[in-house]
Amino acid sequence: MSQKIVGVKASTGIAIGKVFLLANPEFEIKTISIEEPQVEIKRFQDALDKAKVELQGIAQHVEAQMGVDKADIFKAHLLVLEDPELVDSIQTKIEQDRVNAESALDEVASGFILLFEQMDNEYMKERAADIRDVTKRVMSHLLGVEFATPANLTEEVIIVAEDLTPSDTAQLDRRYVKGFVTDIGGRTSHSAIMARSLEIPAVVGTREITRAARFASTIILDGHEGFVILDPSEEEVAAYRRKKAEDEAQKAELLKLVEQKTVTTDDHHVELAANIGSPEDLVGVLANGAEGVGLFRTEFLYMGRDNFPTEEEQYDAYRQVLERMEGKPVVIRTLDIGGDKHLSYLDMPEELNPFLGFRAIRLCLDNQDLFRTQLRALLRASVFGNLKIMFPMIATIEEFQQAKAILEEEKAGLRDRGVAVSDEIEVGIMIEIPAAAMMADQLAQVVDFFSIGTNDLIQYTMAADRMNERVAYLYQPYHPAVLRLIHQVIKAAHAKGKWAGMCGEMAGDPIAIPILLGMGLDEFSMSAASILPARQLLGRMSREEAAKHTDSVLSMSSSKQVEEFVRRTFEQINN
Amino acid sequence: MSQKIVGVKASTGIAIGKVFLLANPEFEIKTISIEEPQVEIKRFQDALDKAKVELQGIAQHVEAQMGVDKADIFKAHLLVLEDPELVDSIQTKIEQDRVNAESALDEVASGFILLFEQMDNEYMKERAADIRDVTKRVMSHLLGVEFATPANLTEEVIIVAEDLTPSDTAQLDRRYVKGFVTDIGGRTSHSAIMARSLEIPAVVGTREITRAARFASTIILDGHEGFVILDPSEEEVAAYRRKKAEDEAQKAELLKLVEQKTVTTDDHHVELAANIGSPEDLVGVLANGAEGVGLFRTEFLYMGRDNFPTEEEQYDAYRQVLERMEGKPVVIRTLDIGGDKHLSYLDMPEELNPFLGFRAIRLCLDNQDLFRTQLRALLRASVFGNLKIMFPMIATIEEFQQAKAILEEEKAGLRDRGVAVSDEIEVGIMIEIPAAAMMADQLAQVVDFFSIGTNDLIQYTMAADRMNERVAYLYQPYHPAVLRLIHQVIKAAHAKGKWAGMCGEMAGDPIAIPILLGMGLDEFSMSAASILPARQLLGRMSREEAAKHTDSVLSMSSSKQVEEFVRRTFEQINN
Repeated sequence: MSQKIVGVKASTGIAIGKVFLLANPEFEIKTISIEEPQVEIKRFQDALDKAKVELQGIAQHVEAQMGVDKADIFKAHLLVLEDPELVDSIQTKIEQDRVNAESALDEVASGFILLFEQMDNEYMKERAADIRDVTKRVMSHLLGVEFATPANLTEEVIIVAEDLTPSDTAQLDRRYVKGFVTDIGGRTSHSAIMARSLEIPAVVGTREITRAARFASTIILDGHEGFVILDPSEEEVAAYRRKKAEDEAQKAELLKLVEQKTVTTDDHHVELAANIGSPEDLVGVLANGAEGVGLFRTEFLYMGRDNFPTEEEQYDAYRQVLERMEGKPVVIRTLDIGGDKHLSYLDMPEELNPFLGFRAIRLCLDNQDLFRTQLRALLRASVFGNLKIMFPMIATIEEFQQAKAILEEEKAGLRDRGVAVSDEIEVGIMIEIPAAAMMADQLAQVVDFFSIGTNDLIQYTMAADRMNERVAYLYQPYHPAVLRLIHQVIKAAHAKGKWAGMCGEMAGDPIAIPILLGMGLDEFSMSAASILPARQLLGRMSREEAAKHTDSVLSMSSSKQVEEFVRRTFEQINN
Repeated sequence: MSQKIVGVKASTGIAIGKVFLLANPEFEIKTISIEEPQVEIKRFQDALDKAKVELQGIAQHVEAQMGVDKADIFKAHLLVLEDPELVDSIQTKIEQDRVNAESALDEVASGFILLFEQMDNEYMKERAADIRDVTKRVMSHLLGVEFATPANLTEEVIIVAEDLTPSDTAQLDRRYVKGFVTDIGGRTSHSAIMARSLEIPAVVGTREITRAARFASTIILDGHEGFVILDPSEEEVAAYRRKKAEDEAQKAELLKLVEQKTVTTDDHHVELAANIGSPEDLVGVLANGAEGVGLFRTEFLYMGRDNFPTEEEQYDAYRQVLERMEGKPVVIRTLDIGGDKHLSYLDMPEELNPFLGFRAIRLCLDNQDLFRTQLRALLRASVFGNLKIMFPMIATIEEFQQAKAILEEEKAGLRDRGVAVSDEIEVGIMIEIPAAAMMADQLAQVVDFFSIGTNDLIQYTMAADRMNERVAYLYQPYHPAVLRLIHQVIKAAHAKGKWAGMCGEMAGDPIAIPILLGMGLDEFSMSAASILPARQLLGRMSREEAAKHTDSVLSMSSSKQVEEFVRRTFEQINN
């Protein structure tokens, strides 16, 4: 009998394959007194060597598949295995305590892990995770237990796991991993974001998949609807093979749009741009025919390290993105740290409500060295492409004026020193705080553009933390209150001859796109994978027709009503 | 030389007097081996008796001065002193360990305090605080150290303290305590709110007053400006005596307005109502001539106890308020728990951003037993006055409809059982979430009234936690974004023939009042102490004149600009 398990839609697409259970191996570690420590030390060294060879292989594989950065995790793991403090302590323990290698490894590693975890420092906490990963690997060789790793797959599978860590996802080999299903996580969890970025179908948050699925049994994953079928019937498999074939045909259709502009049936052009987190993401951006980068989050430069990135490091990253985008617009957002993102090397006090706290531009205006360094790197890179600078979390006009003044000072300073800076840098703001949306008419007089950040705008407008499951039902992108704010922002921008874009999840949502087109949104920035479907959808719509529905949508009273109206009204277009 | 120390304005008024340093006594407790335990036990019992007599005196005094509820703290302290588990443990320790009474008391009490504090239960944590207070009192008698307590004052003083606990403030004797100054706290801290409610001038958050002030030296407290002067010169004292006399003359002038209606020079009537936290607050409400209760927070019924209040307990409280207000409107808000307010007996998960979390109506709709009990108590009390029921934290129209439907079910249920329920209960909502303000036109079709809760509305609109010092500068009541939202809420209410009130701090603010009058606000609900000054101010203004400025104010770009404009334009009226 087939069994259907429902979860959260994380990444669209259909996958059919064998279950690969990525469970943490459960080791049983016994402490045994031994007579010949040399034998145990030899066993330990052999296991160490095997783990090293394995890690080198994975690092090479990941580097070839996913780039240098993703392979760094495994190079860090290799360094752990070569750390004399760890290795010597284990060997000493075997010798002095006359215990078996497993017991010594377990005890010494646990001590190190505990030590690092207790440090109030994200960087050190990551080191603890590294040691845990590596210890597990060496232990598996000592015990002869197979260490399930998605890196050395040789056949097509669907990964089933409690959750996927960043290290797990970095190892996913797109040739063999056709989808994944997890017990925990939501639409915005790390694994879900990763799945969309890798364009692998995924369902997360099923709560029970690791208990229900058996290794190597057949599984169907429906990423469109957000469920899986375990042990499907032949009819089900056949039906899903047809759906998959349709998907693929559609995909082929979409690929024809890569080189095309985004134009509606009434010849209106909108810009479809991509959101990126690091220069590496440009591969997907270019493959999907983005017309620009609508949001380059610069946090990646600051995270996972133990000191500030230098001006030079930042300059290199910004220049690289600008050059590779070959004159297409690139909107780079200044640092948005704080809230749920912390830096181990910047003292940030605990806050009761971090989402309503000291973050983004608030923090940058108070830490001007940090801010000025980033601005100089941006200004210097500006001559290599079409740079637009964007400030996050602007609530008042004074904040923008203050940030802009600092930017102008740095620009003047660079020019005084003979450094070339572009004359054409646009300077804009995120609209993600209700106050900024309410004041859009005034802000439009001083900025060059707006980019509406719907993720935050929705949560502040509804007063509902979108990461909090108990109020997640209030995170309603189609709520008329949100749509009214978006509408007045676009109108205000146009009244002053400025452009308005959007860089939240909503910009790539097929329900939202007709409404946003009707309201006159100029730029839609989304994950690379959403660009071609959005281009196809927009290519089938008339802006004039869409605009006729704006007033009706804005006079509705609930999110549900809006969603139903859009589905009904634009049904024929989506098919 | 006089010394000026600046703090935060907590409660207006001038006070001149002697410093009363309310420092925690620093006990030096030595452990001494003793030969005759009976002598130590006798010493302990004597100290216990003295503490009991002292506490009985305080409890009586507080009950006479401030009512039964405030005296409960001290009755709880008396119970601690009679708790055999505590008392016997101390005596046993003296006997068995042969140590002095001080050491035994210290050790046993510390154990109990630690035990209670570690419990994840607010009620038990309060018990720990009680034991700490009581232990200090007994210790002071054992050691013969004087225990500074504001309860047994005999001359006029100004209290200087690091902070004031609820127990400290409950003991403040208005006859002798003419003001207080603290090291810590802000405008919305417990001690500041208490000062305004007791109408005692106060300055908080000076950071250094306990270090700078000497016992019994002269101090001037300027609650209007938020500073104190230590060791003032004769000229300073004379100048402040004149200011105080002016204050008193002004107060006498204000008292003439108690029985009057609030009417502008162009004969427009607005309602000035009071915010209350418990029936006891009605004394101040009536003394200050409030025309109604604009916000009765019902949380007090649920807090500081270890189980839910019964329907009967709630009914008594609501009925009492309705009766004493003699047919004047009384807006009772249903439970707003969650956020920063927790109940020990209701399981509420930790939240990353509690202000954006599961609170108020969200929690009530999910805990219907709790909600229905409160609604039944309200409905039954409705026949004793002019009740209006208000739901907090409404974000969507569906939430209101759901809450209203539950109310109607309970009403029908009561009537089926033959219980009388008023036919004239208005049902309204707080407008404190930006989404509700944006949807006011739609909400106005289904509710009977709006009450704008500015404290939350401002913090969500600006995305700034007002309790977080680092972003407190963004908590701007006069920001045009906030004013625009308020304006559209009032307009939307009037378009549907409904009334709009305000129950945040802003409603009593002399800078905000002219703007709000101009926008057409119907009801202003504030702390009782603000009512008469507001009535005086409104009595000197013309609504028509005020309305002429609305458009200018709404087209300004910053809070600062608005504030300056109001000061300039309405200057002559305020003087």
